Amino acid sequence: MARHALRLGMVGGGEGAFIGAVHRMAAALDGDWRLVAGAFSTDEGRSARTGEALGLDPRRVYASIAAMIARERALPAGERMDALAIVTPNHLHAPMAIAALDAGFHVFCEKPMAMSVAEAQAIGEAAGRSGCRFALAFTYSGYPLVEEARVRIARGDLGAIRLVQVEYLQGWLSLPIDGDGNKQAEWRTDPARAGPGGCLGDIGTHAFQLAEHVSGLRVEAVSADLATHVPGRRLDDDVGALLRFAGGARGLLKASQVAAGEENGLKLRIHGERGGIEWAQMEPNTLILRWLDRPTEILRAGGPELDVCTMRLLRTPSGHPEGYVEAFANLYRALAAAIRGGGDRWFPGVADGLRTMRFIEAVVANAASDRKWTRIDPGEKE
Amino acid sequence: MARHALRLGMVGGGEGAFIGAVHRMAAALDGDWRLVAGAFSTDEGRSARTGEALGLDPRRVYASIAAMIARERALPAGERMDALAIVTPNHLHAPMAIAALDAGFHVFCEKPMAMSVAEAQAIGEAAGRSGCRFALAFTYSGYPLVEEARVRIARGDLGAIRLVQVEYLQGWLSLPIDGDGNKQAEWRTDPARAGPGGCLGDIGTHAFQLAEHVSGLRVEAVSADLATHVPGRRLDDDVGALLRFAGGARGLLKASQVAAGEENGLKLRIHGERGGIEWAQMEPNTLILRWLDRPTEILRAGGPELDVCTMRLLRTPSGHPEGYVEAFANLYRALAAAIRGGGDRWFPGVADGLRTMRFIEAVVANAASDRKWTRIDPGEKE
Amino acid sequence: MARHALRLGMVGGGEGAFIGAVHRMAAALDGDWRLVAGAFSTDEGRSARTGEALGLDPRRVYASIAAMIARERALPAGERMDALAIVTPNHLHAPMAIAALDAGFHVFCEKPMAMSVAEAQAIGEAAGRSGCRFALAFTYSGYPLVEEARVRIARGDLGAIRLVQVEYLQGWLSLPIDGDGNKQAEWRTDPARAGPGGCLGDIGTHAFQLAEHVSGLRVEAVSADLATHVPGRRLDDDVGALLRFAGGARGLLKASQVAAGEENGLKLRIHGERGGIEWAQMEPNTLILRWLDRPTEILRAGGPELDVCTMRLLRTPSGHPEGYVEAFANLYRALAAAIRGGGDRWFPGVADGLRTMRFIEAVVANAASDRKWTRIDPGEKE
Amino acid sequence: MARHALRLGMVGGGEGAFIGAVHRMAAALDGDWRLVAGAFSTDEGRSARTGEALGLDPRRVYASIAAMIARERALPAGERMDALAIVTPNHLHAPMAIAALDAGFHVFCEKPMAMSVAEAQAIGEAAGRSGCRFALAFTYSGYPLVEEARVRIARGDLGAIRLVQVEYLQGWLSLPIDGDGNKQAEWRTDPARAGPGGCLGDIGTHAFQLAEHVSGLRVEAVSADLATHVPGRRLDDDVGALLRFAGGARGLLKASQVAAGEENGLKLRIHGERGGIEWAQMEPNTLILRWLDRPTEILRAGGPELDVCTMRLLRTPSGHPEGYVEAFANLYRALAAAIRGGGDRWFPGVADGLRTMRFIEAVVANAASDRKWTRIDPGEKE
Repeated sequence: MARHALRLGMVGGGEGAFIGAVHRMAAALDGDWRLVAGAFSTDEGRSARTGEALGLDPRRVYASIAAMIARERALPAGERMDALAIVTPNHLHAPMAIAALDAGFHVFCEKPMAMSVAEAQAIGEAAGRSGCRFALAFTYSGYPLVEEARVRIARGDLGAIRLVQVEYLQGWLSLPIDGDGNKQAEWRTDPARAGPGGCLGDIGTHAFQLAEHVSGLRVEAVSADLATHVPGRRLDDDVGALLRFAGGARGLLKASQVAAGEENGLKLRIHGERGGIEWAQMEPNTLILRWLDRPTEILRAGGPELDVCTMRLLRTPSGHPEGYVEAFANLYRALAAAIRGGGDRWFPGVADGLRTMRFIEAVVANAASDRKWTRIDPGEKE
Repeated sequence: MARHALRLGMVGGGEGAFIGAVHRMAAALDGDWRLVAGAFSTDEGRSARTGEALGLDPRRVYASIAAMIARERALPAGERMDALAIVTPNHLHAPMAIAALDAGFHVFCEKPMAMSVAEAQAIGEAAGRSGCRFALAFTYSGYPLVEEARVRIARGDLGAIRLVQVEYLQGWLSLPIDGDGNKQAEWRTDPARAGPGGCLGDIGTHAFQLAEHVSGLRVEAVSADLATHVPGRRLDDDVGALLRFAGGARGLLKASQVAAGEENGLKLRIHGERGGIEWAQMEPNTLILRWLDRPTEILRAGGPELDVCTMRLLRTPSGHPEGYVEAFANLYRALAAAIRGGGDRWFPGVADGLRTMRFIEAVVANAASDRKWTRIDPGEKE
Repeated sequence: MARHALRLGMVGGGEGAFIGAVHRMAAALDGDWRLVAGAFSTDEGRSARTGEALGLDPRRVYASIAAMIARERALPAGERMDALAIVTPNHLHAPMAIAALDAGFHVFCEKPMAMSVAEAQAIGEAAGRSGCRFALAFTYSGYPLVEEARVRIARGDLGAIRLVQVEYLQGWLSLPIDGDGNKQAEWRTDPARAGPGGCLGDIGTHAFQLAEHVSGLRVEAVSADLATHVPGRRLDDDVGALLRFAGGARGLLKASQVAAGEENGLKLRIHGERGGIEWAQMEPNTLILRWLDRPTEILRAGGPELDVCTMRLLRTPSGHPEGYVEAFANLYRALAAAIRGGGDRWFPGVADGLRTMRFIEAVVANAASDRKWTRIDPGEKE
Repeated sequence: MARHALRLGMVGGGEGAFIGAVHRMAAALDGDWRLVAGAFSTDEGRSARTGEALGLDPRRVYASIAAMIARERALPAGERMDALAIVTPNHLHAPMAIAALDAGFHVFCEKPMAMSVAEAQAIGEAAGRSGCRFALAFTYSGYPLVEEARVRIARGDLGAIRLVQVEYLQGWLSLPIDGDGNKQAEWRTDPARAGPGGCLGDIGTHAFQLAEHVSGLRVEAVSADLATHVPGRRLDDDVGALLRFAGGARGLLKASQVAAGEENGLKLRIHGERGGIEWAQMEPNTLILRWLDRPTEILRAGGPELDVCTMRLLRTPSGHPEGYVEAFANLYRALAAAIRGGGDRWFPGVADGLRTMRFIEAVVANAASDRKWTRIDPGEKE
């Protein structure tokens, strides 16, 4: 509803999809964006029905991204979409993102960034040459108290970091639903559409990005174990990894989609010389601070002693819970600010995407070998 | 963003206000509503600045509700606002709601409904004669797991209800900030603008409405103690009450705004012959079910065994927390559905508002007397 | 096992009883006491079997308290029991305690102290004239973090106290088991053995004692509602009360034995001008401190910043949970220290017992009247 | 206090020690044991003072284990100690245990069992030839809800096990206190007294034993990372390990003594095809059961649906917390039952000790190598 709302297009996210609807709510929440165009499905009728349900002008509901880019580009500047949200399976991320960027559209892309480091680099290059923004849906880094944890560690409250433990437990792939017509499960377990990692790519990347983002440290080497517990599944559904960070911190990463009964259990714990932080996505408005020599503190969204960087990610007073859509909206709001030009709000982008693709490749390589450690290419993270 | 988004106007909610912004997010979230007009402040410049920041057409930013109603009414049907959100101090609710209803606009009004039972009845009559809808911001009844609790009790899972305990603890009025220029505190502690209840009207009403709504029972009599702990404050800042329900259940209601260190601690517990439920607003995606003869169960938003009424209040899968704005948006969505005509979704309205006004008057009367019990007029709840 | 272990006798606590076994564990834990004598049941065979199972000398297993007192008194000083634990139904407390005190034995008595204020006063007089110690099993005040809460409030950390909320929820009397041969239920719901309060006397007294003990404040007046939810039950099974404390604090007390699905939910919350404490018996090693202007702190048994009074009630390092028996043992240890003469450890006694008897009588009187408030006689608390 | 209490001797556990006092409380709690003899310190005066404080006959307070064994053996059967509790640093476990067993005394030994697999085997052989019992202080397996978890998994409630996650986080070695005169820290970080593992031996063994005991599965291979975060420390203070279990389950083990701010955070999670369990030592009376297709259940000590094996490890009704000493006492009680001959209660012994020693050796070997996996010798677990 805000003035000069930016215009958003979307590819993917038709009827029955999950994450497209979340993107739309996140974009709408603060009035920074208005959905104006979409290619919601390769099935033309389905795309049209979704567009109609969303109240779009039927002329801006497309059957393909090619048609969308061609026509939107031809619209007057005050009408054509500003940015494209890519909410398709992974194998389409790179070609679509590159096409959009090359056509002058900003991009908000689902994770993982691409099918390989090479593809991710190609997206980075396209963003570079286009001057457009590329945002990546590492949603969890949009939570206010994740930002608080990052700030506290960056300013040295915990002292030098020694331990990083991150876990992401889901149970929804405990049964062989990938063979039973569940669309979400089907493409996520298909190497041709998901890439080399199953659980690893889908949620292991969230865990890895969160760990590096909040700790401010880079993983140098990984020793990993990939498992496929459900017979017939074509990709891993369970990951365990030992991590060695630059500077000496040691880490553990656990991600599983066969932890039966778990919901969306992303949890991060980091300990330094003087204390530790704990944050859990399912209670996102709380950050636990433990100390060597004084009582544990419970920081709360909207409560005392939060950093100004955290405060500006919040919308409601203390005790009025904000959730997943609000965290997501923080990324959309930051992208809008960057596009408008006055923005100093961080959002995850090419650098985060590249790191996670390197992580995927290192884990896959290590899990297939007899060597203890596989190094992760340091790459170009700022 | 949805097709045929309904058009919303707003009175109150200018710069610095809290609840107006929440209404705007809640209305925007699902694309059911589009803000098109506002009289955000009696200060014309302030109203204009708010309208501009929100991207409104300046011709539809008004300096008074009178101007707003007059001009919006004159717009063509496809342009003029459909409903008015009233987010002003309490003393303005009744005159504004009645004016809007009489002019043919639906109303979404902040709570408490009015300054007295008589005013609330007048609103009810205006709604009746206009055929327009009147929604009341008893936000907490929009939470999915509140609905689950209500359904479970209504279908008899707990057996006959014996105990109802509701509490609402805040600490933000612990210091005399009402005299220090805090606008939120100032009008809430001023009988001329807040009405006969301070804490009682502001949050005691939420607690009471939630208790009756979820238990499905009516309070017949109350024995209450009102306190003003902060010297110089003109209204109560702390309420305790014993409740007697029709059918024999006994209850306790506690509401305080001087519970130093508490955030927004609304919590409901109801026990019946066979078990009990517990719901707390600060962890709203969890409903605890305790049983006489089997283990405690933790129901979760998006998890197994939820009623279909609960499911349709949810937007994201299990483990992706939804919060206060989403609960609020459920009320806006239900109002939209009702206005569109196909809706069977419940929202709080005149009946809930009247009950809470009767509760306020009974508590104030009882607290000033030496009699143990004061009856609450049964009124007209459906 | 400790040197010069004091010698304990017990009346009540035969096979099938609950609290007698707890007393024996609590007395044994620290080696301060050795059980040497018992009149475990009025059924001679049952008493003998219990004594045998406990490894007692059969000559010191008695069929009546009269026999026990007579014979123990006749034993040489280095052999005869030092103190008597009374773990019988309530109607026997006063006659037995008075007989034991008058015979020169210290007493550790179960709560409630007696059947009436008058009886409690008689016990107090017996203790006074005998010079013997009288300890009362207000077990919950033996928890280390209860002591921490008491100390913090006494030293003014919270500022002047405004709110006291105490609740004690159990569900075990939800069904009419008092008529079904359940011995624990049977005598507790029999006015001739339990006294004028059912739930009120059994657990309401714990809640009241805890509230006064920790807050350091006295309740001046009470407005109460007693209910009997289970048909045919002869005493209340559910209590609600508004409390007014000397100095202006307001309180709520809730005790119920028909809160189906609840276990032993004793919880205390006290708020002052600057913050609040919360302690729950089922997680006894944690004390939550909330503050108006800084983050919530979690104090932990064995953790940083505990008062020295708290530390000496602890046996294990931080993170090694101590429980109910340990809290109980703190009372036995304090009584032992007092008897040995070097002790400065507090334990609940006559003063606490008298206050709770006055509370029972005031609640019963108020609940039967139409008057809002009934004063609690200030009595003689230290 | 029980009849025929068994007679316990103790080596180690003098003034200032921690675990000796816990053994004494655990042994005393249920009246199954009576402390009669001790060699509490190699400092004769210190040993004597401890004995005196404990009320022992000074003739049975010894300056060495050799003296103790010689003299106790010479006492008449009805007087001499039945079992020896060994609560010394690790390097003394094997020689002392073997000496005691060979002299016909049962042994209750602290963990880890010994300095090496070879030493542990020698103890096992001594136990075998003596016919005496050897119990090992894997205390956490004495918690009632650990037993419940074990039973539920053994009977197949979760289906085939896929994931085992165990962690044990402490923070007390975050600073270099091992060089500052802290006795507990000093010997635990000295390879000559602690053995090849620091944190690994001290708490990693607890984690490993719990994981195998509850899952009923054996670890086949381990990939591990040992770290020493505090400069100058001579042994590891932090362990991470990937585990592969027989049958295909995958596991993670994390143990750290430099997780600043953590207390005694032992936590076990196991997931199978249909659900998962979670147990945390710091809230030991709760067992969380998560299910693929129905709500999470909270099992509680003393609550509904517990197995009979769990029930008999409990002493108090639901909601009366039992803690660390009670868990410990369950092992002492089981050992007593075994010695008395009628016992069918399990307690950890030689088999558990051997497994953990094999685990220590495998982790140390793996951490020093470039090979991904090191197998753990299957050994002789029953």
